[in-house]
Amino acid sequence: MIQVTTKSPLLYEALADRVAEKIASGHLRPGARLWSVRQLSRLENVSAATVVQAYVLLEGRGLVEARPQSGHFVRASRAPVLLEPRPARPVAVPSRVGVADRVTRLYRALRDPHVVPLGTAVVAPELLPTDKLNHILARIARGAGGVGVAYDPPPGAPALRRAIARRAPGWGMLASPDDVVTTVGCMEAMHISLRAVVKAGDAVAVETPAYYGLLQLLESLELRVFEIPAHARTGMDLDDLERVVRARAVKAVMAVPSFNNPLGSRMPDEARERLVAMLTAADIPLIEDDIYGDLFFEGDRPRTAKSFDTKGIVLTCSSFSKTLAPGYRVGYVLPGRYRERVEQLKFVHTVGSPTLTQLAVAELLDSGGYDHHLRALRKKLAANVARTSEAICTHFPPGTRISRPQGGFTLWVELPPGVSALDLEARALEHGISVAAGPIFSAKRRFSSNIRVACGYPWSDVIERAVVTLGRLAGAQAG
Amino acid sequence: MIQVTTKSPLLYEALADRVAEKIASGHLRPGARLWSVRQLSRLENVSAATVVQAYVLLEGRGLVEARPQSGHFVRASRAPVLLEPRPARPVAVPSRVGVADRVTRLYRALRDPHVVPLGTAVVAPELLPTDKLNHILARIARGAGGVGVAYDPPPGAPALRRAIARRAPGWGMLASPDDVVTTVGCMEAMHISLRAVVKAGDAVAVETPAYYGLLQLLESLELRVFEIPAHARTGMDLDDLERVVRARAVKAVMAVPSFNNPLGSRMPDEARERLVAMLTAADIPLIEDDIYGDLFFEGDRPRTAKSFDTKGIVLTCSSFSKTLAPGYRVGYVLPGRYRERVEQLKFVHTVGSPTLTQLAVAELLDSGGYDHHLRALRKKLAANVARTSEAICTHFPPGTRISRPQGGFTLWVELPPGVSALDLEARALEHGISVAAGPIFSAKRRFSSNIRVACGYPWSDVIERAVVTLGRLAGAQAG
Repeated sequence: MIQVTTKSPLLYEALADRVAEKIASGHLRPGARLWSVRQLSRLENVSAATVVQAYVLLEGRGLVEARPQSGHFVRASRAPVLLEPRPARPVAVPSRVGVADRVTRLYRALRDPHVVPLGTAVVAPELLPTDKLNHILARIARGAGGVGVAYDPPPGAPALRRAIARRAPGWGMLASPDDVVTTVGCMEAMHISLRAVVKAGDAVAVETPAYYGLLQLLESLELRVFEIPAHARTGMDLDDLERVVRARAVKAVMAVPSFNNPLGSRMPDEARERLVAMLTAADIPLIEDDIYGDLFFEGDRPRTAKSFDTKGIVLTCSSFSKTLAPGYRVGYVLPGRYRERVEQLKFVHTVGSPTLTQLAVAELLDSGGYDHHLRALRKKLAANVARTSEAICTHFPPGTRISRPQGGFTLWVELPPGVSALDLEARALEHGISVAAGPIFSAKRRFSSNIRVACGYPWSDVIERAVVTLGRLAGAQAG
Repeated sequence: MIQVTTKSPLLYEALADRVAEKIASGHLRPGARLWSVRQLSRLENVSAATVVQAYVLLEGRGLVEARPQSGHFVRASRAPVLLEPRPARPVAVPSRVGVADRVTRLYRALRDPHVVPLGTAVVAPELLPTDKLNHILARIARGAGGVGVAYDPPPGAPALRRAIARRAPGWGMLASPDDVVTTVGCMEAMHISLRAVVKAGDAVAVETPAYYGLLQLLESLELRVFEIPAHARTGMDLDDLERVVRARAVKAVMAVPSFNNPLGSRMPDEARERLVAMLTAADIPLIEDDIYGDLFFEGDRPRTAKSFDTKGIVLTCSSFSKTLAPGYRVGYVLPGRYRERVEQLKFVHTVGSPTLTQLAVAELLDSGGYDHHLRALRKKLAANVARTSEAICTHFPPGTRISRPQGGFTLWVELPPGVSALDLEARALEHGISVAAGPIFSAKRRFSSNIRVACGYPWSDVIERAVVTLGRLAGAQAG
């Protein structure tokens, strides 16, 4: 695996950052009109296109709004600025997990079209290239003949493995199709990766908070969990992890360096490098969940932790469920030195992945339309997150804290002391609103005052009313 | 689960059996012309349609051939009649499994179009309703919109669960859509079922010989295996199983009552009833693999063991991989009393099954075309098995034994003493022929003189030459 250096931030991003600073410092007040494109282009000695890109980015962040015929303005925000949620405290002993029932209840709400879906990290079909992908699948299916119905044994469809390997330079590394095993979504990739490196009774380190599906997976495999506190901005606390690793207490580490669900945190590159070096020295495999990697709001796409991996200890898992089509169930793993075992486990999990959906995704990737779509999707998700964040800041009771995700599409909200997230979750469901209470994100059932608010659906009056209702319910509890 | 009584053998089958007896006893010699349809209809006092059906059935069994303009004749067979393979001996202690490497090698041969595929139990796309199904999928995908890309959480697509439940009366039972959880093929169904009822280190009873994928699954879960001898005609030896069950030595039983792969055996209804009663009394779950249930050659479709289940201890697993499309990966489980646990495990295995392939299979089932297709498929597979069987009888060395499968499409061949199946497998691959050596079908690596010959591809000169070559290679070893 050869490493590729990450590019420095782009010109328009640097420009957007300078404008954002002026807004944050109060030099530009809410409602103020920004420079025209031509003015700023001259002032900063950059092209007009760069200014336009910077303004678009600032719109995505929710800082700026464009008014037809009038130019760009600093958004008038009634929202107070809230603090970030606090990380959890480290623990000395690992836990058994026990979240299965709550998870089942949560995903069942998905089936009810009358429930406002703030509870599940799902991107709305209208934000995805739904018709395009379905039409590609239709065309391939019509012409597939025997290939369409035939088994596709591990490691999976060559066309898809090639298309995935071609994207690796964007993650700061190189990969060949032989480095890839395709799976039925990211969950199968994580499941198989985990089974390739640990056994029942072993302990595994994970971030806390962590995606509840991952905790349910660990629970089903009878693994014990060391919960390593994750910071809302930078992710897993590596000092705490180092303590656990030095004590030889864990057999594997699972991490979401890029936009951990629910935090949206982004682990800095130096930390990724340190993480991989630490685990390489201790000969402990790292299972990296990169499913949100393409959904960064600013700067470049994050490098994978695997891009720092020289010994093959990193198993990088991902899928197209957050960017193309959850229902296609097309995922993959780059299993490093565990390739043979992963391939064997893939066979006993599902024999092979469905053939035609793999081929459809491969064709969409090859068409070049994927990057174009990702640019639009990132902007829309960033805008959803900004709008939802602002509404929470406005309507939630004083003392609420909120994350500032740098990618993905979930917000992590810490309610004021005394407000029970589980009560809020239950009351919200009575009002037809699905939201995920904090304890489900922890094997130790911490985060009793936190909720995760998913922002995968376009902002709408219905969602705004739901956020207002959530705030009112939380406020009633806060007294 | 209400039980439905199985119908008695049909008139035309009884007629076919009487004709078959006359052939077997020598009253009708090879090449002899059979009665005309009108003659036999009068003689036996049955309708002409019944005679035609009986003749078609006998063609399927390879006993009779129709000659254009001339009528039906007893097939001229040069093949000696061979004995059935012998069952394995019972064992006292369970085994760890260790077949993963050999399995990987076997399914990799699937990818090579130059290898004659006698090694894998795959039905050729030309025997499946390939274009019809692909076109249904294409049509559904074009019109699906957001539904096509959306998650389909457990228990799976309602349309498919309804279509499956509607088929249950054909298995001698009733089921509601709520009794069904859809899966990614039968392997995921078996995997999840197993994990729902046992833990690492537990012992499980399985037939021997057994499908190698099942053994690899047991191996991956670190289960120990009690191998219960299976008879080529009637399946699992229930006396031996009872010994193990009485000793409380196993936590679950896995069985393929209908056309065990590789034997093609059919467990009699009384034995199924006894099996379920025995396990109900001992409170031991039965995982029933019904994947070949629709592929019976004669009589009615076999009842499931589950049709005798009054306490919900049977988890019946199946898929459409042998009858419609292996590459669609559409399977299911009726998990009985273990439903909740199975649904939770489905979530951590693959979250949900792919949406569109489920909908396509549901539509094909609803169209009524499935039963029509099954009738044709059964006839073709029976003919393939008969042809291959005859060629083996003709070209293999004296002392060879062969199974007489009553369904499915695999032949189990016992080579003469001194002939190594593993050597034969290796030499065959040098000649571009894939065949599965016996040891892979046993955790104890027994069956060193057996091979499985799959008959899922239409009979052809290429396949005939491959069988001749196999016979020659076996003969050379037999000296």
